[in-house]
Amino acid sequence: MAASGSEFDLIARYFTRPAPPGTLGVGDDCALFAVDPECVLATSTDLLIEGVHFFSDVDPVGLGHKSLAVNLSDLAAMGARPLGCLLGLALPSVSESWLSAFAKGFHALADTSGCPLLGGDTTRSLAGHTISVTVFGQVPVAKALRRAAARPGDDIWLTGTLGAPDIALRILQGRLSADPTVLQATRPFLDRPQPPLAFAAELPGKAHAALDISDGLLQDLGHILKASECGARLVYQCLPVHPSLSTLPEPVVRQAVLSGGDVYQLCFTAAPAQAASLLALARRYGVQLTRVGCITPEPGLVIEYNGQIMPWSGPGGFDHFSASATGAVPLPSP
Amino acid sequence: MAASGSEFDLIARYFTRPAPPGTLGVGDDCALFAVDPECVLATSTDLLIEGVHFFSDVDPVGLGHKSLAVNLSDLAAMGARPLGCLLGLALPSVSESWLSAFAKGFHALADTSGCPLLGGDTTRSLAGHTISVTVFGQVPVAKALRRAAARPGDDIWLTGTLGAPDIALRILQGRLSADPTVLQATRPFLDRPQPPLAFAAELPGKAHAALDISDGLLQDLGHILKASECGARLVYQCLPVHPSLSTLPEPVVRQAVLSGGDVYQLCFTAAPAQAASLLALARRYGVQLTRVGCITPEPGLVIEYNGQIMPWSGPGGFDHFSASATGAVPLPSP
Repeated sequence: MAASGSEFDLIARYFTRPAPPGTLGVGDDCALFAVDPECVLATSTDLLIEGVHFFSDVDPVGLGHKSLAVNLSDLAAMGARPLGCLLGLALPSVSESWLSAFAKGFHALADTSGCPLLGGDTTRSLAGHTISVTVFGQVPVAKALRRAAARPGDDIWLTGTLGAPDIALRILQGRLSADPTVLQATRPFLDRPQPPLAFAAELPGKAHAALDISDGLLQDLGHILKASECGARLVYQCLPVHPSLSTLPEPVVRQAVLSGGDVYQLCFTAAPAQAASLLALARRYGVQLTRVGCITPEPGLVIEYNGQIMPWSGPGGFDHFSASATGAVPLPSP
Repeated sequence: MAASGSEFDLIARYFTRPAPPGTLGVGDDCALFAVDPECVLATSTDLLIEGVHFFSDVDPVGLGHKSLAVNLSDLAAMGARPLGCLLGLALPSVSESWLSAFAKGFHALADTSGCPLLGGDTTRSLAGHTISVTVFGQVPVAKALRRAAARPGDDIWLTGTLGAPDIALRILQGRLSADPTVLQATRPFLDRPQPPLAFAAELPGKAHAALDISDGLLQDLGHILKASECGARLVYQCLPVHPSLSTLPEPVVRQAVLSGGDVYQLCFTAAPAQAASLLALARRYGVQLTRVGCITPEPGLVIEYNGQIMPWSGPGGFDHFSASATGAVPLPSP
């Protein structure tokens, strides 16, 4: 194989960029960077597996974007400001066009989110592409938005809208038929999630608990309730359903809104006194922000639907190993 | 599938441990920890792919150990002290015995190296196990052992021995026949590498450039020379060949010693005035330390062999995508 196929050349060509101030660039044994002394480091890692988390024929530009976005969403959920990231790539073969497109999508989001690529690992795989991204951010000591920090009486807030990625995925998988305009409107939310990073970095000190809705609203909110040892009351009519879902049957919409994953937006709780300040902050950053319920002292999650309590049989969110998974990824039969 | 198979249960059972002081445990959106204000953060990530980096029937306890060891080796190569790590696991199916054994090997090394598991990601794969580990350490500002820091006149030092992992791998792959005692003696160096972490964390301020020998001595030393814009003179007879290689043919040994990878030991450079202090440090930490050559102002790598210059045709170290790879991993035909 020509030198163009060598691991080191590949890294150099597509992933080496000038080192940001205060860091070493790609290529040493470790990436080095400073953390503000008033802050703690926040870090998270995600694996994306071909055939499990993305289709084999997915647009590599979008895949580069999404690989980073799903990790940035974890920083947003802690209220952390991005510092940089590492990228691990296992490739079955070397395709320059694939690499160049993937790098384009990845770097574009890294640039706009202030999260430069600082290092990584490239290797060969025997079957399919595997993408491993680790992100770093910083958050003021003791102000991180932890799951265990919700308090009874808190408002529950959502950024963005619900349901679009789940509907797009179901249409693409042939599990749902809908007017072509529905896929057109929902697909960008599946392929190019835009976590509200700048808004989220202003939340420490204003919000209490937070997480992203990667596994579905009910399952993810359930994590907050369990960790915080409290309950919640949601008002279904308040949920920010994506408008393009309006032509779909109601049970389909309800499933997508309550249990559909891949929504890289925030669910967070805050004292009612913060409401005006939070809404002003959302306007400043161009973020859609909706109050959808409140935290209760008694445990359990109650959903109000047309003034009645909605019957439901558990969170039903996405579980990567569950045979009854209803989440937003193509799971083969177990 | 029963609840015992759920992703969250798996993580809880095998990977959740009490959070170390100053950190959040496994389970929030991000791991949080503090970095000493006098230090920069050092971080590195490695992907290990079944069939490429490890055999399908490998002992999972050893695999857990090695997955972390190869990453800790990158921290050692910067002179960084471990702070913690993240683990991403993609599994084709849920085997409790596999997970429990892997976790045992992983946690045992995490405990002895002061590198607790802080978080991660567990998901399903369609084919084979994929392991992604990211480590964090800290190193005093401006004292990190960078590749570009070698200076003409520096001594070149190696910790540990050379050749054993490469020979073990070749025997296991059926590419080399040898007395069974050779595999018995060399295999622990392949399966359970022990990077000299505590020794390495004392090197900042004493050594200049460093890296680990994961891709073979000549290729890895070549990275230092390129980054530092200088050359080197190695004395072959000084190289610390593992003693169990003594019964093997000389060309086999030479290849293993100069180009064999998977040696998670350090190659570093330091001013000659540091020699006594370095040897004392090595004795204190029980590390074998050998001076094998020096850095030269003129570029190029020269190897002295029985008083003559050894002819060799380039580093020939391991390249994950090269069809002519000679390194220590089982590469299928491209």
